[in-house]
Amino acid sequence: MPTNRIEAFSDGVIAIIITIMVLELKVPHEPSLRGVLEQTPMYVSYGVSFLIIAIMWVNHHQMMHAAKHSDARLLWGNNNLLFWMSLVPFTTAFVGEHHTAALPAALYGGVFAMCAIGFLLLRSVLIRQHAHDPERVRYHRRIWRKNAVSFAFYASAVPLAFVSPWISYAIYLGIAASYFLPERVATGEKLAH
Amino acid sequence: MPTNRIEAFSDGVIAIIITIMVLELKVPHEPSLRGVLEQTPMYVSYGVSFLIIAIMWVNHHQMMHAAKHSDARLLWGNNNLLFWMSLVPFTTAFVGEHHTAALPAALYGGVFAMCAIGFLLLRSVLIRQHAHDPERVRYHRRIWRKNAVSFAFYASAVPLAFVSPWISYAIYLGIAASYFLPERVATGEKLAH
Amino acid sequence: MPTNRIEAFSDGVIAIIITIMVLELKVPHEPSLRGVLEQTPMYVSYGVSFLIIAIMWVNHHQMMHAAKHSDARLLWGNNNLLFWMSLVPFTTAFVGEHHTAALPAALYGGVFAMCAIGFLLLRSVLIRQHAHDPERVRYHRRIWRKNAVSFAFYASAVPLAFVSPWISYAIYLGIAASYFLPERVATGEKLAH
Amino acid sequence: MPTNRIEAFSDGVIAIIITIMVLELKVPHEPSLRGVLEQTPMYVSYGVSFLIIAIMWVNHHQMMHAAKHSDARLLWGNNNLLFWMSLVPFTTAFVGEHHTAALPAALYGGVFAMCAIGFLLLRSVLIRQHAHDPERVRYHRRIWRKNAVSFAFYASAVPLAFVSPWISYAIYLGIAASYFLPERVATGEKLAH
Repeated sequence: MPTNRIEAFSDGVIAIIITIMVLELKVPHEPSLRGVLEQTPMYVSYGVSFLIIAIMWVNHHQMMHAAKHSDARLLWGNNNLLFWMSLVPFTTAFVGEHHTAALPAALYGGVFAMCAIGFLLLRSVLIRQHAHDPERVRYHRRIWRKNAVSFAFYASAVPLAFVSPWISYAIYLGIAASYFLPERVATGEKLAH
Repeated sequence: MPTNRIEAFSDGVIAIIITIMVLELKVPHEPSLRGVLEQTPMYVSYGVSFLIIAIMWVNHHQMMHAAKHSDARLLWGNNNLLFWMSLVPFTTAFVGEHHTAALPAALYGGVFAMCAIGFLLLRSVLIRQHAHDPERVRYHRRIWRKNAVSFAFYASAVPLAFVSPWISYAIYLGIAASYFLPERVATGEKLAH
Repeated sequence: MPTNRIEAFSDGVIAIIITIMVLELKVPHEPSLRGVLEQTPMYVSYGVSFLIIAIMWVNHHQMMHAAKHSDARLLWGNNNLLFWMSLVPFTTAFVGEHHTAALPAALYGGVFAMCAIGFLLLRSVLIRQHAHDPERVRYHRRIWRKNAVSFAFYASAVPLAFVSPWISYAIYLGIAASYFLPERVATGEKLAH
Repeated sequence: MPTNRIEAFSDGVIAIIITIMVLELKVPHEPSLRGVLEQTPMYVSYGVSFLIIAIMWVNHHQMMHAAKHSDARLLWGNNNLLFWMSLVPFTTAFVGEHHTAALPAALYGGVFAMCAIGFLLLRSVLIRQHAHDPERVRYHRRIWRKNAVSFAFYASAVPLAFVSPWISYAIYLGIAASYFLPERVATGEKLAH
């Protein structure tokens, strides 16, 4: 199976994930400002999840574009990543309904931590594919380390949610914001970490 | 990332947005003419939103087709636009359930105003990309001004909804209808404004 | 806009229409044979709608493939067709919940009649595009007449539903079945009418 | 219609099937560990269905890639397969809500058995297409027999669910796991059976 079919399928799945989340936005019970403001946590969790999935989509493309060829590891590493991403609409709705509780905030980060592991595994497949090209291996390793940092932050947000969910929310927003910070390296690479 | 992947992803997201709105059409409580007629606002809001998203899809393609290359500004300008478009099924359902209230009518226009801003930002990216080609800059600026007029109408419909939601609805229909009016310029361009 | 983008967008919309209908299949209240059999009308309406949309998808491709170029008529004729097709999950759920009532059976056929008009309009665009090629015009006219017959059947099923919905259901099944009947002309064309 | 359009449409439908299942994951009633653990059957059935559909997607591509050309048999054989696959979100939700009952477990396997028949029928179309190439016919026949074994297991799980649904669940997991077992033949083929 050529990598462009994996990309097309992944594009389809990610497009659906990012869009069906809107079905979890329930119409307010009353058409008043109070009715809408009551749902603020739902809107915020929707916006943050939209942003994080959009970042993942960009990273996914950069990664797939770098793949030399498709093999069983790449294919199933990708299916594994899509599985964890597919759970985001569920955890987003859970956080939106119970934003002051610890467990939803922890699960929200737990699923993103699993997505980060999915990215790490796929990046390892790429390092393996380019084993004979030291420069590319260095490049992939650098991004692998960045992903590992993201994973560490997401994973730490899971137990911290039981101290306070707001700590976890701050971590999630911080990780998302870090993708838009200027870097010393070229703009092109900013999108690839 | 080549622009055609951004187009394909956007196509997917817009196709899902325009189609999942039908899931907000609830089956009438009784299979009678009265049961169906009671839902008229829901059907009308569905039809209008379908039309406006179809127009946006056409405009989006014209715009992406004119992009010289993909960069971070184009990519995230596009993700921003898709975010606001993704909220249309939600505001459509809100209007469909409470069509005589001011707030849903205002929010409906507010989301379209944000979409119009999304188009303005993306058009500015194109003007920047073609900075060395005065003719194309003029072309993009002309469309930019048309989009700005659409934005002004959508934005004015937000406070006017609190005078009467019917004024806002008239504005939304008027903007949609204006896309199909004959123009002095060629038919091809009619689809591009 | 090239015709292949219209095709890709239409493919996406039709794929979503045909698939999200499954979300209208509610889980039976009890996990017993009785609980499942009670829902028979829901399953049957799902199956019939799946079949009819699949036929429309095949016809749509044959048609778009024959288009010479894309213009505003083709684009908006296509958007019109997709709009009516997008209502099928709604009418399917309505029939599935109230299969012995006249109105859902009538609406179900009414939406298909509008789809048939959508096909007739698009076919007229093709006749117009090939106006200088008498052979192709004859070909398109022959299919136009077949579509007109389908329309006539769907339209007649609307008032007949008020005599008995079962007459309408027989008509819908008959139209679907007619697509699989052997014809004197080649197999390839069988899929094109 | 070229086979790549059938592939693209199938990709779209399968991407939607695999993703909309998440909409059946209901938010727990309370944000506690107990609330989440109560839903374990729902999560497990989601994971298993995701895995099985991912395997089907891979197999589907291998199969379509081997098709010589598109004809009415291939097209409608494929639509038949997609129909049965489209029912998986429904049977998954049914099992997730009543995992100790026999009927949902039986229906779950019954739909997969129909999918397996869909694969057998499509493979027969390929054998027919390559009738003049004995080597390819042998290849397709070998995979046909593997699919027939999968069908036999799925079909046997239907009556066995009435002995105990856990026997059926073990069979479903066993079939899925078998796709990842090392084989004597090359890795490439492992994905093709």
